[in-house]
Amino acid sequence: MKLNRKDLLGIQELSVEEINLVLDTAESFLEVSTREIKKVPTLRGKTVVNLFYEPSTRTRTSFEIAGKRLSADTINISTSTSSVVKGETLIDTAKNLEAMNPDIIVIRHSAAGAPHILAGLLRQSIINAGDGAHEHPTQALLDMMTIRSKKGRIAGLHVAIVGDIAHSRVARSNIHGLSKMGAHVSVAGPATMIPRDIEKMGVRSYTRIEEAIRDADIIMMLRIQTERECQSIFPSLREYAQFFSLNRRNIDLASKEVLIMHPGPMNRGVEISPDIADGPRSIILDQVTNGVAVRMALLYLLTGGGNP
Amino acid sequence: MKLNRKDLLGIQELSVEEINLVLDTAESFLEVSTREIKKVPTLRGKTVVNLFYEPSTRTRTSFEIAGKRLSADTINISTSTSSVVKGETLIDTAKNLEAMNPDIIVIRHSAAGAPHILAGLLRQSIINAGDGAHEHPTQALLDMMTIRSKKGRIAGLHVAIVGDIAHSRVARSNIHGLSKMGAHVSVAGPATMIPRDIEKMGVRSYTRIEEAIRDADIIMMLRIQTERECQSIFPSLREYAQFFSLNRRNIDLASKEVLIMHPGPMNRGVEISPDIADGPRSIILDQVTNGVAVRMALLYLLTGGGNP
Amino acid sequence: MKLNRKDLLGIQELSVEEINLVLDTAESFLEVSTREIKKVPTLRGKTVVNLFYEPSTRTRTSFEIAGKRLSADTINISTSTSSVVKGETLIDTAKNLEAMNPDIIVIRHSAAGAPHILAGLLRQSIINAGDGAHEHPTQALLDMMTIRSKKGRIAGLHVAIVGDIAHSRVARSNIHGLSKMGAHVSVAGPATMIPRDIEKMGVRSYTRIEEAIRDADIIMMLRIQTERECQSIFPSLREYAQFFSLNRRNIDLASKEVLIMHPGPMNRGVEISPDIADGPRSIILDQVTNGVAVRMALLYLLTGGGNP
Repeated sequence: MKLNRKDLLGIQELSVEEINLVLDTAESFLEVSTREIKKVPTLRGKTVVNLFYEPSTRTRTSFEIAGKRLSADTINISTSTSSVVKGETLIDTAKNLEAMNPDIIVIRHSAAGAPHILAGLLRQSIINAGDGAHEHPTQALLDMMTIRSKKGRIAGLHVAIVGDIAHSRVARSNIHGLSKMGAHVSVAGPATMIPRDIEKMGVRSYTRIEEAIRDADIIMMLRIQTERECQSIFPSLREYAQFFSLNRRNIDLASKEVLIMHPGPMNRGVEISPDIADGPRSIILDQVTNGVAVRMALLYLLTGGGNP
Repeated sequence: MKLNRKDLLGIQELSVEEINLVLDTAESFLEVSTREIKKVPTLRGKTVVNLFYEPSTRTRTSFEIAGKRLSADTINISTSTSSVVKGETLIDTAKNLEAMNPDIIVIRHSAAGAPHILAGLLRQSIINAGDGAHEHPTQALLDMMTIRSKKGRIAGLHVAIVGDIAHSRVARSNIHGLSKMGAHVSVAGPATMIPRDIEKMGVRSYTRIEEAIRDADIIMMLRIQTERECQSIFPSLREYAQFFSLNRRNIDLASKEVLIMHPGPMNRGVEISPDIADGPRSIILDQVTNGVAVRMALLYLLTGGGNP
Repeated sequence: MKLNRKDLLGIQELSVEEINLVLDTAESFLEVSTREIKKVPTLRGKTVVNLFYEPSTRTRTSFEIAGKRLSADTINISTSTSSVVKGETLIDTAKNLEAMNPDIIVIRHSAAGAPHILAGLLRQSIINAGDGAHEHPTQALLDMMTIRSKKGRIAGLHVAIVGDIAHSRVARSNIHGLSKMGAHVSVAGPATMIPRDIEKMGVRSYTRIEEAIRDADIIMMLRIQTERECQSIFPSLREYAQFFSLNRRNIDLASKEVLIMHPGPMNRGVEISPDIADGPRSIILDQVTNGVAVRMALLYLLTGGGNP
């Protein structure tokens, strides 16, 4: 089976079959990163450009490692060293890259929809590595891969997502994906951080973490954007942590076998207490490992590879 | 035939035969970037250092892609992450790089002559990727390659270069190259942006864009450096655009088959109107594609490769 | 013989046999960088991460070139483009990298002990590329390699180290290494820049450069950190240079065959006069060349390679 798409822009437009194809392919690539020689020749002679308009260690590194383990040539462009300084438009930058004949452009941008604009203009495959508060599809795919491999399934599970739901592309992509895959999603956060029409997405919404995580099989904590939001939306980090932190007190409300996820980077002591982050129920680092495999799978599938 | 030079520092010192050798070799490399597997083993085990003291997306990316498609190891050094912060001299940085045995050092520097200093001191090949307002030879070579491939020749063509001629290394390198190759070059720009002795270079000089582009076969628009010049040299961007922009009004003064070039990044609506930049006569993106091929050709020729 | 260590954290814990193993292996790798094709397949499919929390051209470039010449995949992470911006802890960043299955993490950090924390937590090999004022073991190894190859031995030589001994990780690592290898080490610097208990390390301490370099076989000048120290510790750069610069006046106090070293980047005219830095007794650039070989040796030995 092949992925009949030029681009990966969001989870919203993926079918259940497509999500399963990506997850199955990613699982078959997991093994490459555990070999003595962690490299396969699959993408030799392909060029992958990582075009990052926002800073990122883990996502950029994950894509770069994924590309290199498939033998692709990887090119990093970040705003700090780019001609963005000179005021060129995103479209001109993209058209210029297109003219250099890369195969895939991975883009992170603060504006929702930026990857879609590129996808419509360029003949190359575009992968959305996070666009504003819109989508972060590779994160949701690695999250679903992690849940599926730890729990054996996604359908029927209760997943609680806690934090700033309204401004989180991670939440949005996961809500789309988990709902499609048959999970029951609930969210919790301060009222100012919950979108008004969230229930139309088939999601239960709470303003207390205790309600959302009660009986949850999976708790996904979101990073609170300490650098921008707390001044205006919420009184203080301490108050946020008091009501919405996952910690030893409230975790027992969830299922005994609950697993804890976080897309990182974590604010320890704010949205998650360190003993939970590092505890036996945390699968946060599995997410990171699976992230490389999911990105390998996407680079492979978008350049025409298929799953037997 | 081989290029009997250690370095590529400027167009001024190249012979017509050398320019033709580079363009012919570049044309033979164009095809590599269109293959399924865009990679040849030509430069395996060679090290190419991109030493950029000024920010750049397109030129650095173009050199990096060129190096990787030839299987060279590429190393990027940019001022923002370099020990330039610690105040080391250019010469000490270069001597240190030399001691690590790279094969080619590509340098961009705000000081005219910086690549020449390195070329005189180091045993490695130096490629000038832009030095102050002096030369930008790889840009002129890719421009000449583009003209030659689109028009079938350079000799006898009328080429108009419009903008800040005095401060443009692109203009300087192109004037040297195009004149050598037998084209008729005219320039236009505000009086403060035209070098006084430009006519000694065999160039016609105008202060109105209309005069320069009349009957031109090629119009090369230069980027106006909005970040530095306009305060002091020219009243305002709007006034500049009013008199020196290429747009629907004035383009009809040129030949019917006129082709439009721009080295990028473009200031749309300042020196060029969007409909011209994206119109059927624009060959701006061909320039970018040819840029990778020209850089592959230079990396190949400077490491001893020859053209059959 | 093999290096029975997971990590290279400092010279202090290395045995004489281990130091000799690294130097012997490095000498055998020197030749790779002089070949026509400067590449061996030794580390194909291995991933080396350069995690730099302080800016550096030469050390990062040296490690990157070393990795690439061994065919490893190299990934650069520097603070300016990293999620350090987002306030993640060093440990979380490291655990995340671990989850992506690199083979070696090279770390430079302003905090002494940072590499040791990583070494204790991660299954990957950690190489200390400089931690605060603590150690810079690859620098000391390349220095010892350079001395041994130029003088034929280390034991019995008189080595003078001049500058800010108290804040220099280069000095500390070299004192450990050179003493172990049987050299006689003396240091000189302003009283505020000499650690109080330096003589317990078996080192003679002077407050005049003339005393330290008298009869020295090797003089190792340290970089004065002009950007931070001089305001508080020392009256002025001019005064520092007057008393502690190596120059034509004082160099004759040393042995006739004295050799001059500097870890770079140099402040010409401050700690060293240009004619000395570029003179016939300077082996400063040999240090740089040997640096690539030492780093190749360590990448090789830490991934399980042995010396025949």
